[in-house]
Order: sequence, then structure tokens, then C-alpha cells
Amino acid sequence: MLNFSYYNPTRIVFGKGTIGQVGELAKGYGKRVLLHYGGGSIKKNGVYSQVVESLKAAKLDVVELGGVVPNPRLSLVREGIALCKKEKIDFILAVGGGSVIDSAKAIGFGTVLPDNEDVWDDYYMKGDCVVRKSLPLGVVLTIPAAGSESSTGTVVTDWENNLKRAVNSETIIPKFAVMDPETNYTLPAYQTACGAADILAHLQERYFTMEKHNDLSDKMLESAMRNVIAYSLMALKHPNDYRYRAELMWTGTLAHNNQLDRGRVGDWASHDIEHEISGQYDIAHGAGLAIVFPAWMKYVYRDNIDRFVQYALRVWDISLTFDDKDAIVEAAIDRLEAFYRALGLPVRLSDAGIGNERVRKMAESAMIGRDSVGNFRKLKADDVEKILKLAL
Amino acid sequence: MLNFSYYNPTRIVFGKGTIGQVGELAKGYGKRVLLHYGGGSIKKNGVYSQVVESLKAAKLDVVELGGVVPNPRLSLVREGIALCKKEKIDFILAVGGGSVIDSAKAIGFGTVLPDNEDVWDDYYMKGDCVVRKSLPLGVVLTIPAAGSESSTGTVVTDWENNLKRAVNSETIIPKFAVMDPETNYTLPAYQTACGAADILAHLQERYFTMEKHNDLSDKMLESAMRNVIAYSLMALKHPNDYRYRAELMWTGTLAHNNQLDRGRVGDWASHDIEHEISGQYDIAHGAGLAIVFPAWMKYVYRDNIDRFVQYALRVWDISLTFDDKDAIVEAAIDRLEAFYRALGLPVRLSDAGIGNERVRKMAESAMIGRDSVGNFRKLKADDVEKILKLAL
Repeated sequence: MLNFSYYNPTRIVFGKGTIGQVGELAKGYGKRVLLHYGGGSIKKNGVYSQVVESLKAAKLDVVELGGVVPNPRLSLVREGIALCKKEKIDFILAVGGGSVIDSAKAIGFGTVLPDNEDVWDDYYMKGDCVVRKSLPLGVVLTIPAAGSESSTGTVVTDWENNLKRAVNSETIIPKFAVMDPETNYTLPAYQTACGAADILAHLQERYFTMEKHNDLSDKMLESAMRNVIAYSLMALKHPNDYRYRAELMWTGTLAHNNQLDRGRVGDWASHDIEHEISGQYDIAHGAGLAIVFPAWMKYVYRDNIDRFVQYALRVWDISLTFDDKDAIVEAAIDRLEAFYRALGLPVRLSDAGIGNERVRKMAESAMIGRDSVGNFRKLKADDVEKILKLAL
Repeated sequence: MLNFSYYNPTRIVFGKGTIGQVGELAKGYGKRVLLHYGGGSIKKNGVYSQVVESLKAAKLDVVELGGVVPNPRLSLVREGIALCKKEKIDFILAVGGGSVIDSAKAIGFGTVLPDNEDVWDDYYMKGDCVVRKSLPLGVVLTIPAAGSESSTGTVVTDWENNLKRAVNSETIIPKFAVMDPETNYTLPAYQTACGAADILAHLQERYFTMEKHNDLSDKMLESAMRNVIAYSLMALKHPNDYRYRAELMWTGTLAHNNQLDRGRVGDWASHDIEHEISGQYDIAHGAGLAIVFPAWMKYVYRDNIDRFVQYALRVWDISLTFDDKDAIVEAAIDRLEAFYRALGLPVRLSDAGIGNERVRKMAESAMIGRDSVGNFRKLKADDVEKILKLAL
């Protein structure tokens, strides 16, 4: 087990009818609020009106910026930064899923950068940067997926250059997140499925490590994996059942708040490779992960087969003799692919209508701004190309 | 799943050689530090000198108050409050286990109470009180057990009146906890064992609920239970093995930081009943829990036998037919008792040299300041008496 630190001060307010608390939660952070959201689904399902009513009851001034799209764009981030400066915004409230929250995080620290620093060039394109300060941020979460509601991370896409990159820093962890599972009833099945694949991926990225003797984290991650596998399928079959939506939503937060993986370095190659696919083809992040993860597993598992055997046994209950570890791992990957298919997701690039035309380009693009991706095995462009070919 | 909120801002710094960071961590909270500790074991194992050196390097003024005993005393708390006022203390650093931390929490909020409020009468004796403010508190943890290093709770004993009572409040959550598992190498085996029983008890108290459909919390708690069961026995056999000490120490924190049980009301009757035993006989809290828990289980399990069957299957791997649920539960309780015995702990009052003389007195004392104990079943004095008799 590696030495670690852990700090996560997000206040979670979870459950039915909690959205009306947002005004009270927000009002300690200043009077002028940027309300940031996506394409308007929150106006159809009533979340928008509940939020605005609560903010007004708390006597807060609201400035709006909608229009966040999946794989949130740097262009809107720049627009948001200019708006926050012009309107002297004190606090940002993100209402939506991970894309909205990630966009809000970028606006939040981008607004208070010194004039000689650029949000993209000096942060997203620079890997291990530290964000020194940010406007405070609150969240009303409507999609369980990215875990951004209490994470250190934000992922933004420079669509002009097809680059999708992340920043991770304690400073941008949201102050609070209001999570009402009832808001998930109206999610399209495909969005529920992509969210589940993202949650599982966050757990798998943390699970596949070369660090040994870190068993509490292993057991916690296995529990959360078993939970998202079981309840995502139930939520798809029974979209208006609170019990299953609530399991999925809370699992999504714990999968990514960093408490379950202390004492190790996770992998994250599958995320980085997926970012190349969605950076090029604008597919849903969860769908891209369902394509990449099985291929990544097949490519690297022999580097630490015992870790994959443990995964096979403790997550997928594979009952095959230890004499044949390859078969155990193969069976687990088969189960994983069957799970993705049961969710209605692609598990090959071809399932998503993607051919081999840009495989080399994606492999090379993955190396821009860094020497390799992943930690379980440090992957170079040639490795990424081979993984993408396994996924064709 | 019940609606819930969750907030835990303790910064955890975990691992080998981390104690030297305590000065840096403390120095943001003011110049005058009360260093609070126990009977002097920290002077023997080198922790004390590392802490003092680090505080001095950070140019902090240190005032000392040692002498905390297990089942920490109200009398020392009152002494600490007077000392903090006299010395104009800004920050309290607790160095030790749960008793030291709980004493420090009491001193921390007791020091800043209005003159017309008393730390004992108006807080510990009043159940659901809210603590409005407190001196900030940091921790150097040397015993994995109470989880107080990042919990909302503090338990103090008024020894003159044999009353042991708790306060729970967000305000008293420590700002940081430094946890070096190497400090546990010199713990006596019995103290390691009592700590493990306390950790398991924190998980079991959270597990036994009447709330349904809260399965992520169930799975997390089961994982942590399996971990403390496995690694406490390994740590006893190999006291200087970092791997096992680290598992035990981190499990102790997660068992009690409230993240693993969101969405339910836990039970806590076994804790309250144990507080009567240690309030009367001054035995170790963990030993008292090993005596109470099996008896409590036998007394209440039929109220929700399916919950106990799930516990039997998912924690103890009991392989008996579902046709005979009583047998499944009986086998699980047998395994639990065997585990406690393997730790070297008593599982009956008689094992601890305690007879039936004060059973009625303890049952009645448990009702002082409240109508019942526990939530799985609300227990009155007669119930507590019956449970204590089952434990004779």
C-alpha cells in the first residue's frame, strides 16, 4: 500500500425532493450566481424551475449560460469565463451531468486565472498542473455517470483540434452536490447505459494497478462494481423505480470521489484512449469506454495475471480451475462484454460505425502533451494502435 | 433508501514516515497548540518526540496535557477546558487513540461554550444536541479502533456517576488525521484485538437496520467487515508486518467516517449497552462489544431474519439451506464468537469476571437521559436486562 492523502469536502444532499435546498446551500458563497446547464432537458423535466425558484427564494442574482453539449467544448468555456468576468459572478451552479459540471469547473478556475495564463494551454494541455484557486462551485446532478459532482477532475474538448484533455485538482472539488434520483426517471435508456459504463470504468481504472497489498480498496471497488452491474440493468428495465435509480446514482459518486482507491496508482489508459475516440468521432464517453476496456484488458492482462484472476473471481464469480488462469481471465472479459451488450452499448469500433481509417491518428494524438498513457502498463502510440485494432 | 446528507472534510495523511508533516498541517489554525495525549506510550515509541519536533519546526507554541485513560474522564475534560481558556489555545492536537481524540473533542467544544452551558449536562447528557462551534482539532492516530479521527462522535465517562455518554456533531470532525501504521507495531496484542472488535462493531451497528434497498451501503459494510476480520488476525500473528497493520488502520477510519452507511439508520444498541458495562467495570470498550454483540443478535434477529441471513452469507460464507434460516443465523453468530475468541477477547460477562450483580442496575442506567436504546428494535430496560443475562 502506497502512502496517500485523502481530502473530499463536498457536501452531498441526496434523495427525493432535495432540489429545493439548493438556494440555502448556495447562499453562503456570494450573491451573483452563474447557472450553467446543457441542452434544455432540465426545462422539460421541471428541474430548472425548481432550481430557479430556490435560488430566487434565497435572494440570489442569477445569470444563465446554457448550451453545454456532451464532450463539453472549450469554446463555451471561454464564453463562460468572459461572462463571469463581465457579470462579476461569485458562484457557479452546474445543473446537469458530468459535461455541465466539467464545463463549470473549467469556467470556475479559468475566471480567476492571472492574465498571463490560459485555461487550455497552461492547464488542460499540461498534465499534472495544480489549480491554485477557483470560483466556488455547486452541483445539481441529473445524470449518474462522471462522478464529477465530488471529484477533482474536469475533462474538456478543444473541438477545432480534436483534443480532449483533463485537469485534476483539489481546488475544483464542488462545495456541494444535490442528488435527487427521481430526476433520472426521464433519462433516455442509452444515456443511463452510458452512465453505467462510465461508473464501471471509473472503478476498473482504479482496480487495475501494479500496487500489491491494498485489499480494502480492492474489496470496496469490487463491491461498487458488483453494484453498478446489478442495478444498472435493473434501472434499465424499471426506469421509474426509485430503488434502482438511487443505487446507481450513489454508486456513481463513490466510484469517483477517490476514497475507494487510496494506497495505489490507478491505470486510466482506457479513459485516455477513449478520449481520442470521442475527440475524433464525438461518440458518448460511456460507449467509447465499452469499446476500449475489453481490448485494453486483452492487451495487458498477462503483465499481472493474478490481478485479473482476482477481478474474475470477486467481480464476475468465474468458477474455473486456477490451473488455467488465462481461461479465467478470458471468461471474465466475456462477461464484461456481455454486460455492455445487455446495456445496449457497442463493444467494438465497428458496432459504432467506426473503421480503421483514423486508428493511427488517434494513437499519435494520444501522445500529444505526454510520453505515454496508463500506469498498469505505460502505453506508447504503437500500443494504443494495437489496442484500437483489437477493438475494431 | 432514506434521504441523507454526507459531509466529511477531514484531511487524511496516511503512511510510513508521515508524522513529521503534523507541524505543516497544524500551522494554519493558530499559534497556540494544546498537545493532548494518554499515559506515555507515545514517549516510549518515539511518536511524542517526532510530533514535538514537527510542531516546533512550524514555530508553534505547545502546551501539554497528558493523562487520558481508556474510557476518557469528564474530570480531565474539565481540566483541559480550564487550561485552554487560561492558555488561550487556538488548536488542539490529539496524539493517541480514540480516548485521547474523544477527550480532545470534548475540550475543543467545551472551551468555546457560552458561560451558561455545561459540556456534560447540556451536551453529553442530552442525546441529540448540536454543537455550534469548537476549537479546531487535529489528530495523530496511534491505535486503529474508534474511528474518531474522522468521525462526528465523542464518548466521555463521568466516572463519579458511572455514566458514559456520546455527542455527535459535524462541528467536531477533526481537520486532519495523520496515520502511520508503523506506530501500531508496539501495540499490545490485547489492544490490537479490542480495536478490531470496535471496528467490526462500528460496521455491524451500521449494518443492522430495518431500512430496505440500500445495497451499496450493505456491500461496502460487508467488504469492510471481511477486511477487518481477515487482517486483524493476520496483524496479531505478524505484529510488525506493515501490510496487515495498514489494512487494519484504514479499515478503522472508513468504518466510522459515515460514508459507508448513507441511506439508513443504524442500530447502536450494542454500543449503548457496552457503555454501561465499561461505565461500571472500566473494561476495554472492544472487549465489552465482543460480549454484547452476540447476545444482542440472539435477542433481536427474528425481527428481520432476512437481514441476518444476508449477513451470514455475505460476511461469513455460511453454506446452509435457506429452508432453515435460524440455523444460518445461529452459524453466523457462532462464527462471530469464534472470531472474537481467536482475537483473545471475552464473549461472555463471566469471561471478564463479571457476574449478575449489577445487571439490573446497568439496564436501568442505560435509560438515564433517554427512553430506549437501539433502532433495529427499540430496547427498554427489561430488554437490556435480558440481553445482559444472555451474555452472562
